[in-house]
Amino acid sequence: MDYVASRDIRLVPSPVCSLVRKAEDRMLPSQWEALNDRLSEGPKSYSVRNLRAAAGEIEFPHAGAVFQDSDLFKWIEAASYALGRKRDAALEEKIDWLVSLMQKAQRPDGYLNTYYILTDINKRFTNLRDHHELYCLGHLIEAAVAYFEATGKREILDVTLRYVELVNATFGFEEGKKHGYPGHEEIELALVKLYRLTKDPMHLALARYFISARGTNDYFDDEAALRGDKPGWAWSVYSHRNRYYQADEPVTEMTMAKGHSVRQLYLLTGMAELAYETGDEKLMSACDTMWKDITRRQMYITGAVGQSSFGEAFTLDYDLPSDIVYGETCAAISLYFFAATMLKSHPLGEYGDIMDTLLYNGTLSGINEDGTRYFYVNPLECIPKRSKYSQSVFHVRTQRQPWYGCACCPPNIARMLTNLDERLLLKDKNTLYVNLFASLDAETQLEGGSVSITETTDYPNSGSIVFRVNRAFPGFTLALRLPGWVQTYSLKINGQNPPCVMDEGYIRISGLSDGDEISYVLDMPARLVEAHPLSHATVGKAALMRGPVVYCLEEIDNGGELWNVLISPNATFTLTPDARFGTVISAPVLKQETDGWDEYELYAPLRENKYRQFTARFIPYRLWNNRGEGEMRVWLRLKQG
Amino acid sequence: MDYVASRDIRLVPSPVCSLVRKAEDRMLPSQWEALNDRLSEGPKSYSVRNLRAAAGEIEFPHAGAVFQDSDLFKWIEAASYALGRKRDAALEEKIDWLVSLMQKAQRPDGYLNTYYILTDINKRFTNLRDHHELYCLGHLIEAAVAYFEATGKREILDVTLRYVELVNATFGFEEGKKHGYPGHEEIELALVKLYRLTKDPMHLALARYFISARGTNDYFDDEAALRGDKPGWAWSVYSHRNRYYQADEPVTEMTMAKGHSVRQLYLLTGMAELAYETGDEKLMSACDTMWKDITRRQMYITGAVGQSSFGEAFTLDYDLPSDIVYGETCAAISLYFFAATMLKSHPLGEYGDIMDTLLYNGTLSGINEDGTRYFYVNPLECIPKRSKYSQSVFHVRTQRQPWYGCACCPPNIARMLTNLDERLLLKDKNTLYVNLFASLDAETQLEGGSVSITETTDYPNSGSIVFRVNRAFPGFTLALRLPGWVQTYSLKINGQNPPCVMDEGYIRISGLSDGDEISYVLDMPARLVEAHPLSHATVGKAALMRGPVVYCLEEIDNGGELWNVLISPNATFTLTPDARFGTVISAPVLKQETDGWDEYELYAPLRENKYRQFTARFIPYRLWNNRGEGEMRVWLRLKQG
Repeated sequence: MDYVASRDIRLVPSPVCSLVRKAEDRMLPSQWEALNDRLSEGPKSYSVRNLRAAAGEIEFPHAGAVFQDSDLFKWIEAASYALGRKRDAALEEKIDWLVSLMQKAQRPDGYLNTYYILTDINKRFTNLRDHHELYCLGHLIEAAVAYFEATGKREILDVTLRYVELVNATFGFEEGKKHGYPGHEEIELALVKLYRLTKDPMHLALARYFISARGTNDYFDDEAALRGDKPGWAWSVYSHRNRYYQADEPVTEMTMAKGHSVRQLYLLTGMAELAYETGDEKLMSACDTMWKDITRRQMYITGAVGQSSFGEAFTLDYDLPSDIVYGETCAAISLYFFAATMLKSHPLGEYGDIMDTLLYNGTLSGINEDGTRYFYVNPLECIPKRSKYSQSVFHVRTQRQPWYGCACCPPNIARMLTNLDERLLLKDKNTLYVNLFASLDAETQLEGGSVSITETTDYPNSGSIVFRVNRAFPGFTLALRLPGWVQTYSLKINGQNPPCVMDEGYIRISGLSDGDEISYVLDMPARLVEAHPLSHATVGKAALMRGPVVYCLEEIDNGGELWNVLISPNATFTLTPDARFGTVISAPVLKQETDGWDEYELYAPLRENKYRQFTARFIPYRLWNNRGEGEMRVWLRLKQG
Repeated sequence: MDYVASRDIRLVPSPVCSLVRKAEDRMLPSQWEALNDRLSEGPKSYSVRNLRAAAGEIEFPHAGAVFQDSDLFKWIEAASYALGRKRDAALEEKIDWLVSLMQKAQRPDGYLNTYYILTDINKRFTNLRDHHELYCLGHLIEAAVAYFEATGKREILDVTLRYVELVNATFGFEEGKKHGYPGHEEIELALVKLYRLTKDPMHLALARYFISARGTNDYFDDEAALRGDKPGWAWSVYSHRNRYYQADEPVTEMTMAKGHSVRQLYLLTGMAELAYETGDEKLMSACDTMWKDITRRQMYITGAVGQSSFGEAFTLDYDLPSDIVYGETCAAISLYFFAATMLKSHPLGEYGDIMDTLLYNGTLSGINEDGTRYFYVNPLECIPKRSKYSQSVFHVRTQRQPWYGCACCPPNIARMLTNLDERLLLKDKNTLYVNLFASLDAETQLEGGSVSITETTDYPNSGSIVFRVNRAFPGFTLALRLPGWVQTYSLKINGQNPPCVMDEGYIRISGLSDGDEISYVLDMPARLVEAHPLSHATVGKAALMRGPVVYCLEEIDNGGELWNVLISPNATFTLTPDARFGTVISAPVLKQETDGWDEYELYAPLRENKYRQFTARFIPYRLWNNRGEGEMRVWLRLKQG
């Protein structure tokens, strides 16, 4: 099973199409300005400047983080997905220029990392734990594969292959090689992608090496000793100092998500990609165990993951505080990648459900409506004045920013969105799976013949999806994801109830003929959701959802002190279409008043508190903070009895 | 108005007496072992060793924190209060030995700080911001005053006076002097105490200098520049980097408690002491403003203060999370000192109420039953496994520790408790104020004559207090604090209802004669308390109190997952006397069960959750964690409707 390629799909206006267009039209150009240090506000990137300096074009010391190259590579990857749909000479000229700089910067033996080229190249590969060289190479590989596939131009691929050769000559189980692996995973999944293009067994073997060597030795401590450094530093407060890097035990022994969340999830994605490619059941079983831990015990309702600001890390099962959460945009994106890989390995609807959750909540909350400002941290509750005075939420920015000193998230959203069309449909033998819902025309080859379908929907604003089979063949099966949140739905083929089979989250429809029209209507009422009672931070609270979309209250609509709002389990919701927010939901709520409390009274015996009823206005969480700074809250106190 | 001196009071067995005896019999000896690095577990103190090395008795580099001397000085102060009640040759021998070491260590010009003596004395007074020299001197002054007053031995006082002379010659508004002030306040209050003993105007003037210079210049930045350091560091994340040190504005302009909580409160105590001594109304008004901010907007129900682990700091009004709280034991103690000073400046019952709250909750929670293990951080909610995996609560130790690398709290509790008798009664003209309730015999001189009273009580286990007037004089008034939590009480004199006046939290009784017996019964039912609705972390929750005592649930009595416990506003409480916990309270509660939730279900539409009724067992919060590690919780969800 694999995703239906972008070239087989033509997007038609719908919410998904708008997201792809926003990424192409707004994010790519504005990020190009950022990468070239031409934004009028925010920190500078220095990533283009570093590459120019490494190429000998200008004289400048390295600036920015050691992993700054990766922002550029992610941007190239994002742009390449756009080019795959539509070539663009001006955009390609920019990338070709960057590739020409890479060619000049690359050392004779293939090495290419601006940090070490511009500082001390003799120190390269001496600090895998902290210095992200292999992480940057991973992103270079992804960029190279994407650009080559989009344009057929192979210069960037050649540069990359030379660097991979060097890395393969440097690292491995063999005697004489360094027995290391990256402190920040990413290259593992990239090497599997590269293998898929090149079919060079070395590329797969190198991915397997990095995954299977991980956590089996004390490499990070050993290399630190060679550098004359102390082993570990702040992260040592974890029970084992290598836990932060997922390097405290072999990867197949992991049972609880741990350490830096993006690293954890890129590692899992790499493991799943390798298992997908090789059929390694032990790896896939570890991925499954970790999938369950993350999505059933350590994931916010928005799909956000990584509860702790310290270490940008996972904490423990059922520890899901709304305010002090980290929920890095990149972590949500990496969970989306992990889900996408799991899905192509096994057509289980829940993988698509989580992708849906992530797309419409915890990833898109990372960008503003305009596509030019970003959140790095995605809280489920924001009290702006706390972010000013309480260190527990200093990491929670109360407004999206134009750029970050560590700007991993912006180009990551870009590459996720420009590649969104390639996560909509999958095919396996004679079955076409519909994963994420979007208006499109698709024509693709299955084993028994080619099929052509048209899909029309305003999802997630509406749960109504219409498919038209333009061309089918005998034996063709259309499998429609039935989201886990659906309580009632209707399915008609040409107005009739069809015979169909529900299996692992999909409705499988066979016997389709050319011209058949399938009306698939997922009833999408507003619903209150609660969390497992082991989640100490959410007990007694409810969140409002509609379809895959999590809603929130904002101060601009509802006033402040939102922690005092109570919602009844029986509240009646009014849904109103809204040009800006898709669907706005209103509901009567109660608000505990401060009336009757003296300003000098902090604790007092229970009293009859006053409650004011008002109509609360809920908007989709992902769209919060598009109207200035203010309080925001997802989880509301639930009125009992 | 001033406190009735310890020498006028004889404690009789009661809870207060037990606390004083525990401090004398258990804490002082075990802390002596700790200060001499003879504990079998926990970090070493090095403070005696540092002093011996500074005295040239042994060869050792300085070890431990730069302020390690202060632990020794606080212990001397604590021991002195015990000696004031009863001389003890063995204890005095220890202190005299320490004083002889101080004499040897003191530099010819009076300087005495082991850190700089053992490192580079030329750098002394070059880092007031971080290096605590004046803080240590403050504690030396308090020790010297206490030891001199207890024993009449003046060697330590002479050592101290020489050091104070040097400091006075070094710092001040005058040209040629450094215009600095301590990064950690403490010396201000100590100098006022010293002045009270010596009547040397310089001592009062120096206190006034340190207080009035504070925040009026950029001294910390200037001295950093002279050292070649960058100004500020991590604390710079505060809106102004000197906010952490209360040095961002003149002290009389402060309106919101800020920065390091112990520093803030020692400063306020110093300001209040100076205002008490001089009648400075502007200073007293600033103290009053800050008192209100702290006790009505930034204080936990236990009296704990300092919400933030980062910076051990205050955050903002009504920000009172139970789990990530810092609530340093020293901060509660310093609030107790501030309250005590405010009280002698103005006989307002609420100052005593807060002292009561602090004594029976947020300070005593810092020690175990045995008096040999300590909490530095005092949470209102503990989930032990979170402290292992979530950085937000890494600072919350789940078990009391035998000692700390930064062991400011243990000797601070000791000096608070050994001096507890001197905070029980106050006198002003012909009025004797009863502040904290304890069994005692007191005989003291008022303006119109001497009085002798006997007080008998088991407070806070019982609200019944009996006074017997052994000797009075015409015009004598006895003022009994009527705690703010009291809803009903009875007061009888020789079985009759007396004429009396309620005024600012005191019941004033006049016309007493020798032999009169006053029965004062404060009804002490269990009561549920809620917090101001602006306190986002406690809304919808209640805490159980009885008298001044805050109660909690512990896992050992009630099982885990205490966040799932709901209590009804109308719950009936059963009070049971208990040898270990004074009074144990039981009440029927509901517990939301996890039954019906699949282990793989994290979010789901609202359902009928199951609740199990059981009888919860509440114990006084201060006594939690005396039976092993486990969950603990003060604030419980309130059952509505």
